[in-house]
Amino acid sequence: MADLDVLAPDSGRLAERLARLSEYHDSTLPGWSREVFSESYRASREWTRSLFAEAGLNPTVDAAGNIIGRLPGRAGGGPALVTGSHTDTVQNGGRYDGIVGVLAGVEVAQRLRETGTRLDHDLVVVDFLGEEANEFGISCMGSRAVAGTLTADHLDRVDGTGLRLGTAMERFGSDPDAALGQAWGPSDVHGYVELHIEQGPLLERSGHGIGVVTAIAGIDRLLAHFAGRTGHAGTTPMGDRHDALVSAAAAVLTVERIACGAPVHGVATSGHIQSTPGSMGVITDQARLWAEIRSVDGSWLHGARRQIVEEIAAETRARGVELDVEWLSDQDPVPTAEAVRDVISGAAEGLGLSWRAVPSGAGHDAAHLARLGPMGMIFVPSVDGRSHCPEEMTAPEDIATGTHVLAATLVQLDKSPARAL
Amino acid sequence: MADLDVLAPDSGRLAERLARLSEYHDSTLPGWSREVFSESYRASREWTRSLFAEAGLNPTVDAAGNIIGRLPGRAGGGPALVTGSHTDTVQNGGRYDGIVGVLAGVEVAQRLRETGTRLDHDLVVVDFLGEEANEFGISCMGSRAVAGTLTADHLDRVDGTGLRLGTAMERFGSDPDAALGQAWGPSDVHGYVELHIEQGPLLERSGHGIGVVTAIAGIDRLLAHFAGRTGHAGTTPMGDRHDALVSAAAAVLTVERIACGAPVHGVATSGHIQSTPGSMGVITDQARLWAEIRSVDGSWLHGARRQIVEEIAAETRARGVELDVEWLSDQDPVPTAEAVRDVISGAAEGLGLSWRAVPSGAGHDAAHLARLGPMGMIFVPSVDGRSHCPEEMTAPEDIATGTHVLAATLVQLDKSPARAL
Repeated sequence: MADLDVLAPDSGRLAERLARLSEYHDSTLPGWSREVFSESYRASREWTRSLFAEAGLNPTVDAAGNIIGRLPGRAGGGPALVTGSHTDTVQNGGRYDGIVGVLAGVEVAQRLRETGTRLDHDLVVVDFLGEEANEFGISCMGSRAVAGTLTADHLDRVDGTGLRLGTAMERFGSDPDAALGQAWGPSDVHGYVELHIEQGPLLERSGHGIGVVTAIAGIDRLLAHFAGRTGHAGTTPMGDRHDALVSAAAAVLTVERIACGAPVHGVATSGHIQSTPGSMGVITDQARLWAEIRSVDGSWLHGARRQIVEEIAAETRARGVELDVEWLSDQDPVPTAEAVRDVISGAAEGLGLSWRAVPSGAGHDAAHLARLGPMGMIFVPSVDGRSHCPEEMTAPEDIATGTHVLAATLVQLDKSPARAL
Repeated sequence: MADLDVLAPDSGRLAERLARLSEYHDSTLPGWSREVFSESYRASREWTRSLFAEAGLNPTVDAAGNIIGRLPGRAGGGPALVTGSHTDTVQNGGRYDGIVGVLAGVEVAQRLRETGTRLDHDLVVVDFLGEEANEFGISCMGSRAVAGTLTADHLDRVDGTGLRLGTAMERFGSDPDAALGQAWGPSDVHGYVELHIEQGPLLERSGHGIGVVTAIAGIDRLLAHFAGRTGHAGTTPMGDRHDALVSAAAAVLTVERIACGAPVHGVATSGHIQSTPGSMGVITDQARLWAEIRSVDGSWLHGARRQIVEEIAAETRARGVELDVEWLSDQDPVPTAEAVRDVISGAAEGLGLSWRAVPSGAGHDAAHLARLGPMGMIFVPSVDGRSHCPEEMTAPEDIATGTHVLAATLVQLDKSPARAL
């Protein structure tokens, strides 16, 4: 695999681009915030587009707002090799999540051009719009549009200010109605591979430089509404209360307890409690809790979802508090393609690198792309397992290594007949 | 007690004034919100002052912002009989809490004048500034100033926007520095009696029209800060988490559990959880919980306060979350004067009314006035025990009855020598 050595990335260039992109963040917010539809995100995407152009990828922006670059292959069209990720962040997020995958895709394409290495298939690099969870309760907006799973219902979702997602997309310059009709088909995709930081501690703990992802966790997100009764905090006997905040707090512990008891991979997290009236001296009558459950094991996820609602319902009933649970999203676990996993682990071994199989607790654009063709993911270690926070970090050499494995994987997939994937 | 019949209040006038005052509320907020320092409160106090003048009470406004009316007695000065309450509300509050006591005081004074009934002592009626809990964490601002327990430290407290209490008072037209030096002395007060709605269910449940208050609950208010560690909600194993929201939720249940287990009168309430980053997909690193404990039993209150902190500390330690507990205020229980209780119950019996002894779970201006002389409180029933909510209600006939008992009590106290109180 001597030809793979020449495809080693320019790690200085990669690091410099990472630093450049991180300059686009909302300076009024903590961390490296570049949330979807924000001004900093809008500005960053101009830069990203110019980077795609600089790398020779002739970028276009589709109706959903995805930035799409293409390096033509020898075959002149047909199913493409696709790679990419996203460049939006959560609020108070980091500089690596998603970004590494986009910049690595550009780097691989640029190295192919610079070395005169031509693939048979077109290589398509995508910066997918808005992958992170947001106030509309709908993540992976761009990759859903490509996979054909963005729906008119999604566009009617509203954020905390009552703004429709469709309207937000229009204001951002996208064409949401056209985005509903622009799905790719299986004949467009030979294979999809995404490089991403692990965002967890497994690779660092076991000392492996490369993670071969087995499956992407399914995610169920809920919004629980608790309706109790307000009253004076000094004069209402404890036994007469219907305190919505206490019920929401009990639900937070239920959510945690059910995930802690999972015999398989599973996590559950409460994001936020909003309550009114929220004054000292007054019992809370209305509370809302946002929470989520994740697992790569679909049957556990399904059971945990039912169990959480049952236990919260029993608890609120006992307190005379009314409960309404709304499921904001549910996404089944998505296994990666076995053949793509084999190509990735083979590529890592070919470069003399240690690898291990890992689950992905996080959702990814790759989960949606899996509808279009064989899908795989490459993880690189996260320092201290941290992500979605300003301290998020992956060593430059690990990013370079991951990018090299991505290149080697794409080269090998290029040679693999579709029937073998 | 034939002379007491003529002092029966004009219940139509009382009801009309209650309705008039309720028109002053912040229409951008739910309920009957008239919070201290708000525009609606400012406007309402102009009206209250004119009402005092109409009743012949020659109102003045002291440095703290209290509206003070005086009906001179035959003795020409000396210790006065004092009554009153407050007209501010909590956010989303009701139309009776505090207001009934101020309007009843005015009504008693007006009936005394109208019937040519002269007391020996001056009768002083006060609308105390800002009794309700507020964002500065300091309730009963006006009665504290009168009792000499408003301090320079209080004036330095800030609200959520960083505004100093002293500055807020200045903007409202008060003179906070002078308010620190305007305390009354024991020689100013012959006795203090306050009529108030019960705000709880005891009188309604037992079918008594009049409550004779045994003691006013002590209140300890706390702000607990939880500092955990943020991270990705999908990739951080449950066992690796330091989730500040889970610790805050557990604290809410601890606060409730300790009050539910009280063998004496005791309640505890969590008001609000504030947490960051508060996004879906991210573990909470910072949470703050406001909570309070109340009891008329000082020793239980003291123990509960210690127990709550110990249990929350143990829980947060177990999760690797850091805890800092700040006590915003602590107020010991205040017993009413036995002699004043006897006068109130005697007055009720003289009017042929049923009464019972009740604790006051709520704090009141009366707790501060008790420093200056013998203090008592008269409660009237709250429909369904509700208060601090828009549904707060006391029947017009119950308000009239309470006002009549207030008049009879003041007349009897007027005849009681100071040594008997």
